[in-house]
Amino acid sequence: MALDTAILDRLREIVGSEHVRVAPGELAAFARDATPLFHAVPDAVVHPADTAQVSRILALATAEKIPVVPRGAGSNLCAGAVALRGGIVLVLTRLNRILEVSADELLARVEPGVSTAALADAVDAVGLLYPPDPGSRTVATIGGNVATSAGGLRGLKYGVTRNYVLGLTAVLPTGEVIRTGGRLWKDVAGYDLTRLLTGSEGTLAVITEVTVALLPKPATTRTGLAYFPDLAAAGRAVSRVLHGGVVPATLEFLDRRCIDAVERYAHLGLRTDAGALLLFGDDGDESTVDAHLRHIAEACTAEGAVEVTTASDAAQAEALLTARRCSLPALSRLGALTILEDASVPRPRLAEMVERIDAIAEKHRVTVATFGHAGDGNLHPTCVLPDARDTDAIARAEAAFADIFAAAIELGGTITGEHGVGSAKLPHLAARLGGDQLALLRRIKAAFDPAGILNPGKLGS
Amino acid sequence: MALDTAILDRLREIVGSEHVRVAPGELAAFARDATPLFHAVPDAVVHPADTAQVSRILALATAEKIPVVPRGAGSNLCAGAVALRGGIVLVLTRLNRILEVSADELLARVEPGVSTAALADAVDAVGLLYPPDPGSRTVATIGGNVATSAGGLRGLKYGVTRNYVLGLTAVLPTGEVIRTGGRLWKDVAGYDLTRLLTGSEGTLAVITEVTVALLPKPATTRTGLAYFPDLAAAGRAVSRVLHGGVVPATLEFLDRRCIDAVERYAHLGLRTDAGALLLFGDDGDESTVDAHLRHIAEACTAEGAVEVTTASDAAQAEALLTARRCSLPALSRLGALTILEDASVPRPRLAEMVERIDAIAEKHRVTVATFGHAGDGNLHPTCVLPDARDTDAIARAEAAFADIFAAAIELGGTITGEHGVGSAKLPHLAARLGGDQLALLRRIKAAFDPAGILNPGKLGS
Repeated sequence: MALDTAILDRLREIVGSEHVRVAPGELAAFARDATPLFHAVPDAVVHPADTAQVSRILALATAEKIPVVPRGAGSNLCAGAVALRGGIVLVLTRLNRILEVSADELLARVEPGVSTAALADAVDAVGLLYPPDPGSRTVATIGGNVATSAGGLRGLKYGVTRNYVLGLTAVLPTGEVIRTGGRLWKDVAGYDLTRLLTGSEGTLAVITEVTVALLPKPATTRTGLAYFPDLAAAGRAVSRVLHGGVVPATLEFLDRRCIDAVERYAHLGLRTDAGALLLFGDDGDESTVDAHLRHIAEACTAEGAVEVTTASDAAQAEALLTARRCSLPALSRLGALTILEDASVPRPRLAEMVERIDAIAEKHRVTVATFGHAGDGNLHPTCVLPDARDTDAIARAEAAFADIFAAAIELGGTITGEHGVGSAKLPHLAARLGGDQLALLRRIKAAFDPAGILNPGKLGS
Repeated sequence: MALDTAILDRLREIVGSEHVRVAPGELAAFARDATPLFHAVPDAVVHPADTAQVSRILALATAEKIPVVPRGAGSNLCAGAVALRGGIVLVLTRLNRILEVSADELLARVEPGVSTAALADAVDAVGLLYPPDPGSRTVATIGGNVATSAGGLRGLKYGVTRNYVLGLTAVLPTGEVIRTGGRLWKDVAGYDLTRLLTGSEGTLAVITEVTVALLPKPATTRTGLAYFPDLAAAGRAVSRVLHGGVVPATLEFLDRRCIDAVERYAHLGLRTDAGALLLFGDDGDESTVDAHLRHIAEACTAEGAVEVTTASDAAQAEALLTARRCSLPALSRLGALTILEDASVPRPRLAEMVERIDAIAEKHRVTVATFGHAGDGNLHPTCVLPDARDTDAIARAEAAFADIFAAAIELGGTITGEHGVGSAKLPHLAARLGGDQLALLRRIKAAFDPAGILNPGKLGS
C-alpha cells in the first residue's frame, strides 16, 4: 500500500519536505538492513529531528494504522529494521548529539543517532570508559544498541548494553513521551521500563534520548593469544582461568576454519595447524593486569596450549586483535553469500556446541565456521555459500541454522545472544520461550502499541 | 471478606491442611511487614511447597477473584507485603533450597525463600561472591530481594540485585509457569521479562526460582573512615575519589545526628564533634586495594577531613563497619516510632539534599537523621517520634516525607532508591513518573494479571 498524499503532506508538515523521501531510489536504499535474504521496500522514509516530531509522527501512524519501523544505522543482523509490512521507515540519525558527558556523575546523555564509537571516543577523551563494544561499533548507533541490548567482546567482565542504560526518553506508539529511569544507579520507582525497552527491538516505543553509565578508564590494557589443539582444550583453559578468580575483559575464540580464513585473508602469520585460537586480554591497574595475564597464560599452557604469546606493546596487541576483528570479512571472502548467526550456550558447553555445529553443517552440506565470545558462551556460526542465487544451498543453510538453534536450546542456551530476534529468528522464538511466554509478550506489546503499528512482524507479533 | 469454606478446602487440598492458616492469631502474625503504620489482616495465610502448588493457588485465585500477596521474610519497608485488600498471604519460605552453586559457570540457582545471607555464605564457601548486600540481608529472602531489586552498600561498584539476576521461574497470576532468561550472560531472545519481573514487587508474577550471577571472591577487602566538618566536604571527597579513577565498593555516610545516636548507642569512640562521617572500603587484589585506600584517604584529607583512619586488620574493619550497620537500631532507640525512608539524588547533590531534609524536618517540627550510600546518592532519612500514638506528630512526619520526596524529584532524583514503592509510596509515584507512564504501568499490570488479584493496591494499581 502506498501512503496517500494527505498523509505524506502531514508528514512533510511535521518534519519538513526534504526529510520525507518517497522516490523509488531513496526507498530502495532503506529496503534492507545488514541481514542477507531480507528485503522490503517501505512507502516512505522519514527523518525526524527531535522527540516532538517523533511523537507527532507516531500519533499520526497510530491514528491511520501505518506501520513504522525505527532505524538507526541499519546494521541489524536479524532483519529487525526491515519494513516487512511497508509503511514508514523512521530514521533517527538526525538525532545525533552528545548532550552531556559528566565525569562527576559517571554518565553520558546522548541522542539515539550517535554511533557507539563516537560515544566511546567522546568519553575516552575525558578519561572515561563506555564498556559495551559490539563488533559494529563504528557504524551502529546507540539507539540501535539499546534497542537490541547489544553485546560485544567484553560481556563477561563488563556486561552488555542493558547494564549501562540508566534512563531513556521514549515515545509510545500512541504519541506520549515518557522518561524512564534517569541519572541514578538506584531507582526502583515503578516497573523497570528502562530495561524492558532495552532489547525490545523497536517494537514497544521509539527511543529518542539515552543516559548511559560510564566507568573510569582503566590504566592499562593487555592482550595475548594462545593456540590449542582443539576447542575443548581452549574451553578447559577458560574454565581454569575463571576458577583461578580472574574474569578477563576479553576471551575470544576462533575455530580451525576461521583461523584458516583469517590467515588467507590478512596474512598475520597465524598457526593454521592449530584447532582453536584463544584471544585474551584484561584491563585495570598495571600490577593486576600483569598478574592476570600471567595467570591466563599459565592456565592455557596447563590445558595443552601449543603456543602462548603476550603482546609486549600496543602495536603488537593491535595485531593480535586483528585476528578476531577480521574474522567476518575474512569469511565473507570465501563465498558470495555470508550468513552470520548468533547463539549462546552455557560456557562449559561451548566446545560441545561447536562440535554439534560442525556435525550439523556436514549433515546439511554447508560450510560453517565459528568464532565468538568464549567467556560468555556466545557463538557466531557463520555460513558461507559460493553462490548467492543458489536457492537450494540457501534452503540447506536455513535448515542447518534451525538445527543449530535447536541444539543451542537443548544445551541450555538461546537462539540469540546479542543480535536480536528481528524477523529472521521469530520462527524460532516459540521453541526458546514456550507458548505461554510468547502469548505474554504479545499482551505486553499490545499494552504499548494497541494499533500494532510499531515494527510489526517482529518481537511481540 | 472471609474466604468461604469451599475455597479453603481447595487450598488445603493443594498445599495440605497444615499449610493453610486461618486462626486469628496466625493471621495477625502476617498482618504487617517491617513498615510502621500499615496493618491489614489477611483471610488466609498459605505456605506452598513448590512451583506447581503456587500455580494451582494462583489459577484458583484468578478464577475466584481472591487477592494474593506474595511474601518472603516480611522485611519490606514500604508495606509491599501487607494484604491491604485481604485475601491470601502467600508465604514462600518453604521454597528454601539452594539448588546449585556452580563455580564453573559463576552462578547459583536458588528457591526464593533462601535468605540473602545464606546464599552469600554458600557461595563464599566455594570462593565466590554474591555482591548485592541489602541491610536486611540476614533476614530478607532472595525472592524478596528480586521482587524489590534490592540494593545495599555496594551499589556503585557492583550494582544492585537486578544486575545479578540471570533467570527466573515465575508463575503468572493466571497459573501459567514461565521461565525467563536462564544461565547466560547474553540472551536477547524476547522482551527482558527477567528484569521486568525484578523490582515488580510481587504485582506481576510469583517468583519460584532464581538464577543469579556470581563473581570470584576478591582476595582482599579493606575499610577506612573519615570525619568531615560537614556533608558538603564529604561529598566533595567522594567526587575527588571518583575523578581519580577509583570506584570503591563502599562509600557510606552518616550525618551529625546519626553519628551522635550511634555513639550514644554503641560507644564506639566516634567523634561527635564532626558534621559527617564517611565510611569507605574497597576489595580486589591486594596491591590495587592498598593503592585505592591510599587514594581515598588522600582525597578525604584534601577536602578537609578532620581525621582519616584505615583499619589495619579485619577486627578493626568490623568495628568501623559497626558504625554504619547500627545506624538504624541506634536511631530506633531515640524514640517509640522510627520511620526509615529511602530516596535517591544524583551523587553531586547529596549534601544539598541533606540540607533540604534538615530544613523540611525543622519546618514540620520532626527529628530526621540521615545516613546512606554516598557513592550512589541513595539516602535514608529516618524520622524518630517519641510517641507512637501521637497522631499529630505522625501526620507531621508524613507531611515531611512528602516534602522530602518532592525535593528528591526536584533535584533529579527519585522517591525510592532500593526499598520499593509498595503501598507506602504509591501516592508519590505519579509525581515521579507522570500520568502517561503510570497509565502504561497499569496496562502492563493488566497484561500479566487480568483479574487484578496479585498484590492489589501496589505497583500497577
